[in-house]
Amino acid sequence: MTAEQQIDSPKGIQQNLSTTADGGYVVGVDIGGTNLRLALANMDGAVLARSSSSTVNSRSAEAVTHMIRQGVQDLLQEVSLPGTALSAVAAGVPGVTDVDAGIVIATSYLMGWRDVPLRRLLETILGAPVAVDNDVNLAALGESWAGAAKGATDFVFLAIGTGIGAGIVLNGRPFHGSRWAAGEIGYMLVPGAKDEPVERGKPGALEGIIGGEGIKAQWQSLWRQGGTTLPENLMATEIFDAAMKGDPQAQIILQQSARMLAAAICNMTLVLNCPLFVLGGRVGIHPALLEATERFLERWSARAPLRLMRSALGEDAQLMGAVRLALDTANLRSALPIGEPSSKK
Amino acid sequence: MTAEQQIDSPKGIQQNLSTTADGGYVVGVDIGGTNLRLALANMDGAVLARSSSSTVNSRSAEAVTHMIRQGVQDLLQEVSLPGTALSAVAAGVPGVTDVDAGIVIATSYLMGWRDVPLRRLLETILGAPVAVDNDVNLAALGESWAGAAKGATDFVFLAIGTGIGAGIVLNGRPFHGSRWAAGEIGYMLVPGAKDEPVERGKPGALEGIIGGEGIKAQWQSLWRQGGTTLPENLMATEIFDAAMKGDPQAQIILQQSARMLAAAICNMTLVLNCPLFVLGGRVGIHPALLEATERFLERWSARAPLRLMRSALGEDAQLMGAVRLALDTANLRSALPIGEPSSKK
Repeated sequence: MTAEQQIDSPKGIQQNLSTTADGGYVVGVDIGGTNLRLALANMDGAVLARSSSSTVNSRSAEAVTHMIRQGVQDLLQEVSLPGTALSAVAAGVPGVTDVDAGIVIATSYLMGWRDVPLRRLLETILGAPVAVDNDVNLAALGESWAGAAKGATDFVFLAIGTGIGAGIVLNGRPFHGSRWAAGEIGYMLVPGAKDEPVERGKPGALEGIIGGEGIKAQWQSLWRQGGTTLPENLMATEIFDAAMKGDPQAQIILQQSARMLAAAICNMTLVLNCPLFVLGGRVGIHPALLEATERFLERWSARAPLRLMRSALGEDAQLMGAVRLALDTANLRSALPIGEPSSKK
Repeated sequence: MTAEQQIDSPKGIQQNLSTTADGGYVVGVDIGGTNLRLALANMDGAVLARSSSSTVNSRSAEAVTHMIRQGVQDLLQEVSLPGTALSAVAAGVPGVTDVDAGIVIATSYLMGWRDVPLRRLLETILGAPVAVDNDVNLAALGESWAGAAKGATDFVFLAIGTGIGAGIVLNGRPFHGSRWAAGEIGYMLVPGAKDEPVERGKPGALEGIIGGEGIKAQWQSLWRQGGTTLPENLMATEIFDAAMKGDPQAQIILQQSARMLAAAICNMTLVLNCPLFVLGGRVGIHPALLEATERFLERWSARAPLRLMRSALGEDAQLMGAVRLALDTANLRSALPIGEPSSKK
């Protein structure tokens, strides 16, 4: 029997449950519009192997689930484990995800998924219990497990990349909202953004101004007015680097981004009364953004002191959150009697 | 033994506990900057008597607790009940309240309380178990028990009077935030408000523009420009009445208020993913405001459908929430063995 056959076998689930009791292995998966990343960990959460592959030309749910299957097999083989060693898998998705049903309701336009029963697809293909959640929620879980928010029971993880999203943890548990869309703050109405909501992809929304693409566009518009020796095509993080080195035009972009981000954080804490915000994502982890945003908040929030921190896990936050969710899933399943169905499907 | 002596007696607590088992009575209290209102109810929640008195000249914690004591005695006498019939009391306060400790941390400038141990003060003076909470949170509880949000597990009660505050209910329970200040949205940063937080009492904050006093001030400023035959001094609700009758200047104020309120609601639902908002408070229950706000939301929220309703309990929402909390407190205490201490004081 090959590793592949074992993974395919539905009986694998029951075998896994008994394996878990002796200490099995889990895989965390981070599904992105650019990359698919996997990490194999033991039941102590120590990562033993990881992999990354491009999703740029294969973003359909079918293509991605097959890439995950291949990736899991490769990781198990890398550390010489049989398929039966797999206790659970958890996957983070860039979109609104019904955690109870295991269904991805909608993803960003990059992925374009709608009502994809991802948990069922992966459980069938992997023969192990699977859990799914929104990637920003998993990043928050990662930071609270092994990052900047360790021990915090109430905090918000703010992911700023191309888009902006918040993973909210209340009373030590991820908060999803009544329709799984809590924390979708990319369209928050703050001073400086358009004064009414804009359609996805149209300019003027918060994430269209202070997300990665928005910052690039602001820079290009300012660049055309002259006054800088820097090139027109810069990434958001390069613009923030230039601001740190004193470029006055880049400073304008940085200050404007920090001011709007501070407004969004103020609004979130007025609603949630949450004392800690962790900045993450490719753009959000830039130290210049943290510092500039902190200055606005210090000036503004005399009445409600806030702590702002940078993600400690950086680009790994989502992936580590997925590992943690996989561990929780394995532990939960191992508590069931042997032979119990592995999910409600 | 007079009713008063019975209420004063610490033994009253134990007597009450045994009374509760047979069905006692509770009092709900709504402490406001203008009025103190009380309602006496049986264990089915039916209100048997109510009273109201002015707090304008007696807003200190001492004065208010004594008014509550007198009010409770008067209500019991009104329906010919002995002091021992009192199973529990709950009070709503216009300020940030630590529900666990029973302490009012801070109230609006009208009341000016700071760290007042209101639960202990009232338990001592009333000889019955007492619970306290923020008044807007109690209004939300009232609406979910007997008002517009009956059966809703996730909703926001938005109180618009002089100030603006939100009572948030998540998973069927009031959400207080990590420092008891969740929903204090009077300073939310939305387009049209100042683009940085303002000090309390200074103009430019959300509640300084669309709260009762803010609306009056907007009207007076517009009035000085001419173009209306209406008087300069109008209340917010009178301005909304005028807008309904077609006054163009009043329409401007109404539309601006509705637009900013819709923005605040959008922002709250982006964070909380909450499908129902109930408008309450003296200004918030005006039908013209609901209709105008609904129009903005219909136009804006294609991506996240929202339901907006008027408070069904109106000015009674806080008081009915207090009755409900008193009932819960009585039922909780009656579950304790006779003679158990009535609180953690």
